[in-house]
Amino acid sequence: MTVAASTHFRSFLDELARSQSGRILHQELGRRWPETADELNMIARYALLPAGKLLRPIMALHAAEAVGGDPAKVLTAALGLEYLHVATLVHDDIIDADELRRGRPSVPSQFGVPNAIVTGDHLIFNAFGAIVDDPQAAPAQLAAAVAVLAETGRDLCRGQLLEGRLAGELAASTRHYPEMIRLKTGSLFRAVCQIGALLGGAEPELAAGLGRYGEHVGLAFQIRDDLLAYVATSEQTGKPATSDLDNGRPTLPLLLAYQAATDSQQLELDVLLRGRGGGEAGLEWVSELLAETGAVAATRERMKLHAEHALAELAVLPASASVDVLAGIAHWTTSDES
Amino acid sequence: MTVAASTHFRSFLDELARSQSGRILHQELGRRWPETADELNMIARYALLPAGKLLRPIMALHAAEAVGGDPAKVLTAALGLEYLHVATLVHDDIIDADELRRGRPSVPSQFGVPNAIVTGDHLIFNAFGAIVDDPQAAPAQLAAAVAVLAETGRDLCRGQLLEGRLAGELAASTRHYPEMIRLKTGSLFRAVCQIGALLGGAEPELAAGLGRYGEHVGLAFQIRDDLLAYVATSEQTGKPATSDLDNGRPTLPLLLAYQAATDSQQLELDVLLRGRGGGEAGLEWVSELLAETGAVAATRERMKLHAEHALAELAVLPASASVDVLAGIAHWTTSDES
Repeated sequence: MTVAASTHFRSFLDELARSQSGRILHQELGRRWPETADELNMIARYALLPAGKLLRPIMALHAAEAVGGDPAKVLTAALGLEYLHVATLVHDDIIDADELRRGRPSVPSQFGVPNAIVTGDHLIFNAFGAIVDDPQAAPAQLAAAVAVLAETGRDLCRGQLLEGRLAGELAASTRHYPEMIRLKTGSLFRAVCQIGALLGGAEPELAAGLGRYGEHVGLAFQIRDDLLAYVATSEQTGKPATSDLDNGRPTLPLLLAYQAATDSQQLELDVLLRGRGGGEAGLEWVSELLAETGAVAATRERMKLHAEHALAELAVLPASASVDVLAGIAHWTTSDES
Repeated sequence: MTVAASTHFRSFLDELARSQSGRILHQELGRRWPETADELNMIARYALLPAGKLLRPIMALHAAEAVGGDPAKVLTAALGLEYLHVATLVHDDIIDADELRRGRPSVPSQFGVPNAIVTGDHLIFNAFGAIVDDPQAAPAQLAAAVAVLAETGRDLCRGQLLEGRLAGELAASTRHYPEMIRLKTGSLFRAVCQIGALLGGAEPELAAGLGRYGEHVGLAFQIRDDLLAYVATSEQTGKPATSDLDNGRPTLPLLLAYQAATDSQQLELDVLLRGRGGGEAGLEWVSELLAETGAVAATRERMKLHAEHALAELAVLPASASVDVLAGIAHWTTSDES
């Protein structure tokens, strides 16, 4: 699959999930988390399956292959990165009291908070277990991969707290938003690519370069998601259109609009974000403000910048189908697809 | 400090905490978690300090030294094992809605459930980070240690769920109690000693032997704790005397009494455990039943058996001060000290 061809499909990520690596990951995930009467594995299975698009483990496999490694040997670790991602979703759903996840009751909503806490922990432990699972891997690379995953886990925790503190705070968020999305989203994408490369046999320096690629993709991915909340329909994003406003999330489009807004518009934005978002009328007013202040265009510029930084990190790698896929993912982050 | 001398002191564990390794661990813990304005580290510090008796990291250091390793090089990893222990306490306090821990408000009670979830996760990630922190360690031993810690984490989750399911269920618990305390307590003590030995340079087989020592000590430790709830005062145990009954915990003393009890006594025990424990009167009746049925003596026998198994695992090691300390801990589990 070439990137040029793939971008013609309706959804690049759907196509990626149906690619060979995506299909193998889906199959293995189902095989490793079978239906069971065991309560803990049953809840973990509910959290993991049906799987999302498995973008992170797919990227890990391609990062391994891009540096000359055998993706089959990185399969378990790649799934481990999905376990960590899902663990954070399970714990986040408790913290945010979110009742729905991927169109079904969230884990805390379906199984209660105590089970959700334990299941999230269980998935974290499984993530680390998966990283060191390959008995044939070079131990030094396993240890380096564990160190990256531990550091990323700490970043995710820090991002979770920072996000909570910034809710409703537009003025304070301008300074902290880049750090917040780096911790919350960039860090795990970085780890995914860095660990994939390490376990694929890359030297630390090359793996760090793939990590920087991953971080920029993650940042573009998050900014894209933040923008779609205002320019896409709820059918496209899969969540209520007013969700970000309702939750007072000071995302980049809002921050850029805030900076360009008049004093009275700033005041109105502050009130909206600290209140309950103002419903559909509030959303309409904000969407108009974003267009009027040029915040939509400025946000897209920021996405493109991260995508370009990501692509630049790939330049050191020899041409291969996997590098094409990684480049395609960077391109996709700046596309209009939902 | 010889074991023979130490057992004359008021409390062996207090003495151990004041030993050289205990003092170094206390100092390092305070140094690595200083007072800070950073919210996440501040809550983690609250959870970790003032420290308990640091029995687990002390055992890790002595396990490393017992196999010929340098305990100074295992210090960070030993503290990591304490982080994992405290992480489980923080998450357990949410699950059990416990408002007090070590005589102070518990983390969820002091900082709220969301912060407690994130802080527990943060401590888990720090535990794994600490294990792979030594750049001079043999990578194969680091990877093996991470695998042990991940497996133990999964055991702890499984033990937490099993304990919840068995609450109030005396008849069902007879079969599951050994597995439950193995998962809940034995597993982490096993990991502590196995990881200490691995990072001290032991071959996997020798490290596994120290792991079995640790598991038996952990089981004796847990059974001892379960017995003290009925034969010690609340001043000695540091928790309300009726706590285990109130929470319907089907511990070994109760299970042994249940097996030896008459039908009507069994019925009364069932009612007590499924209700709210019957307060002081309930406790008095149960304590008498334990003595009358020989359950106290039988429980002590089980503790002794585990202590003997633990001591037997130490027989392969050359004599050293650290082996003496490890043996002393096994002996202590069968003592009457609180």
